[in-house]
Amino acid sequence: MLIIGNHVSPYARKVLIALDIKGVDYEVDPIVPFYGTDAFTKVSPLRRIPVLIDGDLILNDSTVIAEYIDERWPEPPLMPRAPEDRARARWMEEFADTRLGDLVIWKLFFAKLVAPRVFHREPDPAALAQVTDVALPAALDWIEPRAPEAGFLFDHLCTADIAYGCFFRNAALAGWTIDPARWSRSAGWVARVWAHPAFAATMPYEAAILGARSHERPAALRAAGAKVSEHSYGGNAPQPSIMLG
Amino acid sequence: MLIIGNHVSPYARKVLIALDIKGVDYEVDPIVPFYGTDAFTKVSPLRRIPVLIDGDLILNDSTVIAEYIDERWPEPPLMPRAPEDRARARWMEEFADTRLGDLVIWKLFFAKLVAPRVFHREPDPAALAQVTDVALPAALDWIEPRAPEAGFLFDHLCTADIAYGCFFRNAALAGWTIDPARWSRSAGWVARVWAHPAFAATMPYEAAILGARSHERPAALRAAGAKVSEHSYGGNAPQPSIMLG
Repeated sequence: MLIIGNHVSPYARKVLIALDIKGVDYEVDPIVPFYGTDAFTKVSPLRRIPVLIDGDLILNDSTVIAEYIDERWPEPPLMPRAPEDRARARWMEEFADTRLGDLVIWKLFFAKLVAPRVFHREPDPAALAQVTDVALPAALDWIEPRAPEAGFLFDHLCTADIAYGCFFRNAALAGWTIDPARWSRSAGWVARVWAHPAFAATMPYEAAILGARSHERPAALRAAGAKVSEHSYGGNAPQPSIMLG
Repeated sequence: MLIIGNHVSPYARKVLIALDIKGVDYEVDPIVPFYGTDAFTKVSPLRRIPVLIDGDLILNDSTVIAEYIDERWPEPPLMPRAPEDRARARWMEEFADTRLGDLVIWKLFFAKLVAPRVFHREPDPAALAQVTDVALPAALDWIEPRAPEAGFLFDHLCTADIAYGCFFRNAALAGWTIDPARWSRSAGWVARVWAHPAFAATMPYEAAILGARSHERPAALRAAGAKVSEHSYGGNAPQPSIMLG
């Protein structure tokens, strides 16, 4: 099984952690978002990561892939069992994928870390301040009453917990962390997600990815313990594309 | 149970048809997308429709809601059974919700029918031609080999079938139909979805919604057979918002 994507994409990371929890073996193709060959477009018509390729099965969209992983390898479960709980978990995940995707990934992480490196475009301080001082606090105000006081959203780490852990890791990498004095439940919850063994095990990949230039990344990831595919769907030039998924 | 949304939103329509197939009783609040009170923002933080409200359970996102409906009322099934089939169904649905959402809803239906009425903004003919002559044909080229030659995607009408039926209804309402000479499988498939009794039963609501001004819409929908809620989350003035969900 191949996963196209790398751990610094919160969408890909969600899927990779899900596979780790299930104990499923896989290789990664850590392509740079915005790069990608024509072969990549064939397997990802929206040019998004992650992509799962398992024989004839080609799947896009992190939510779709995570649901597949949980149904194909049911133990240990990722989703809760009761229909209402499953629905709440999915809606929490969707809020993260959509709202935090927009705020944390595009308007913060991308603007601050990716655009300057990949597109030589410097961030606009006023736009960044709007995200960090207004929009992210408003999102946290929505999250806070829904965050668990102890443990996770349900009785075990579920896909939605992982999603929030992933987005707030990207926020932290871009210098923004949840203020525990203002959002104590959210701050504690996300800290517990990060400390979960399956999540904690992915921390070394962050430095391997962010600290290496794209052509050095496979070697850096292998050194950090990842199984990296010999073949890559990555291209050599940036292209207008989207990384959300 | 209340569903906020109307049948001319493909996302709301997907959910309403799912409930009809399950035989679940509900009321609708046919608010105009882009309108919506502060109470609407509370139940839909992204200001999207549809919203499902069932006692304490408040769900957003048509995919999340449709999954809930299928798990809460398992018979007759909407999703296929095998994990791989379910994954393919979800990814097909996601492609429609994302790509056809962008092309058919925003760039065609919204630009041609909604923006002139709600925002007094006339469409740009070149932008419309780009959608109808380039982007939609490219999407159909992706859909065509995945469309079933007979019947539906799986052995019964599933959520993904319904999604494609919904988006291409909006395209048809905006004057664009699938050319059967060019995409015969897709054209036949979508025609079969429209002819399914659960889908065909929603056709009268299109004229009721599109033919009535917003304050006349509840009465027009009731006359067409819908159960319309007495209370509405709709507001009196358009607001910047998004209708996708």
